[in-house]
Amino acid sequence: MNFLEEKILADGRVYAGDILKVDSFINHRIDMDVMRQAACEFKRRYEGERVDKILTIEASGIAIAVMLANMYDVPVVFAKKAETANSTDDKYRSQAFSFTRKEMNDIVVSRPYISPGERILIVDDFLATGQAARALIDIVRQAGAEVVGLGMLVEKGQQEGGKSLRGDGYRVESIAIIDSMDHGTQTIRFRNHSAQ
Amino acid sequence: MNFLEEKILADGRVYAGDILKVDSFINHRIDMDVMRQAACEFKRRYEGERVDKILTIEASGIAIAVMLANMYDVPVVFAKKAETANSTDDKYRSQAFSFTRKEMNDIVVSRPYISPGERILIVDDFLATGQAARALIDIVRQAGAEVVGLGMLVEKGQQEGGKSLRGDGYRVESIAIIDSMDHGTQTIRFRNHSAQ
Repeated sequence: MNFLEEKILADGRVYAGDILKVDSFINHRIDMDVMRQAACEFKRRYEGERVDKILTIEASGIAIAVMLANMYDVPVVFAKKAETANSTDDKYRSQAFSFTRKEMNDIVVSRPYISPGERILIVDDFLATGQAARALIDIVRQAGAEVVGLGMLVEKGQQEGGKSLRGDGYRVESIAIIDSMDHGTQTIRFRNHSAQ
Repeated sequence: MNFLEEKILADGRVYAGDILKVDSFINHRIDMDVMRQAACEFKRRYEGERVDKILTIEASGIAIAVMLANMYDVPVVFAKKAETANSTDDKYRSQAFSFTRKEMNDIVVSRPYISPGERILIVDDFLATGQAARALIDIVRQAGAEVVGLGMLVEKGQQEGGKSLRGDGYRVESIAIIDSMDHGTQTIRFRNHSAQ
C-alpha cells in the first residue's frame, strides 16, 4: 500500500452516495507531506517525458499542480470554471458536468497560456466520471498542444472516467485507485497496482 | 524595485476600472519563479514568528499558500466560497464582497481545520478592499486562533484595505504595493518600500 492509500484509510471518510471525503488532507486542509510525495510519485512515473506545462482546474487541483510544477520548473495553468470581470481575452472553452456541484461548468483557459506543440501534463485531485479531465484534454487539443498524460491523486475506479480515458489511449497515472467503498463499514478497497 | 514589481511592470496590464491583470504569472498561468521568490520573501519578513498554518481562500491564493507552507512545513487551509455537496460538517462562516465577481460570497472553513491557539498566517494574491482578508481574519477569530499577519502578493494601495487593516493593528506584508496606475499610459507606480 502506498503513502496515499495509507492516508486515505487513516483519514478519509466514506459518505453515502459514493462520496469519499478527503477534506482533511487534500481539498480543504492540505497536507504538505502528501503533496510532496505525490509530486515525487508523478515525476517518477513520467520519468523521461518532456513536460512543458502543468494544467489543472481550480481549485483543488492547484496544490498538486504547483508542487509538481516546482519540481519540473515549468509553469502551471489552471483552468477556470466561470468568467470573471478581469478576463477579457479570447479563451479556449469546454464544458464539464461537476459531480460535486451537480451542474454544468464552463471550463476556460486564456489562449495565450497554452501554445501549439507544448507537451502538457494534466493533474487533478480526483478522477471520477472524467468530465473535467475530458474538458482539459479538449482545451489542450484546441490549442494544438499535446497531452503527455494525466496524473490523478485519487481515482474512483468504480466510475468509468479512468477506464474510458485509458481506452482512448491516454496515459492515466492515479496514485490511489478505489475499487469499492462502503459507507456502512467504512471499508475502502484499492485496486492492485499491477492491475492498473 | 523587487522581483515582483519588475514582473508587474514587464507583464502586468492595466485595464479601465482600476483593474490590474496579472493573469500571465499569478492567477491563471502561474510563474513558479515568482511563487518561489514570493514564498522566500514572506518567510524572510515573518522571520522569528511561529506559524502553525497557512490560511488562504480559493482559488488564486492557493499557489502562494502551498509554496509558503512547503517552506514552513505546515498545512494549508483554503477557505471555500460556496457550499459543495461533499461538505456536511459544521463550519466557520463569514462573508465578503468579491471585487472581481461583483457579488457577496459566503466564505467557509470546516471547524476541525483551525484549532484554538494556532498561529495563522493569512496569504492571498491580491489585497484591495480587504473584504476577503477581513472574512479570513473573522474566521480565525471565531476559531479562537491567532492571526500572525497577512502576506499579500499585490496590494492596491489606492484602495483602503491595507490601510484599514494596518490601522486595526494587523501586520500586513505586501510584496508589491501599487500607489497608482493609469490605463491610458499603462503606467504603474509602486509605493516606496520604506513608506509601508
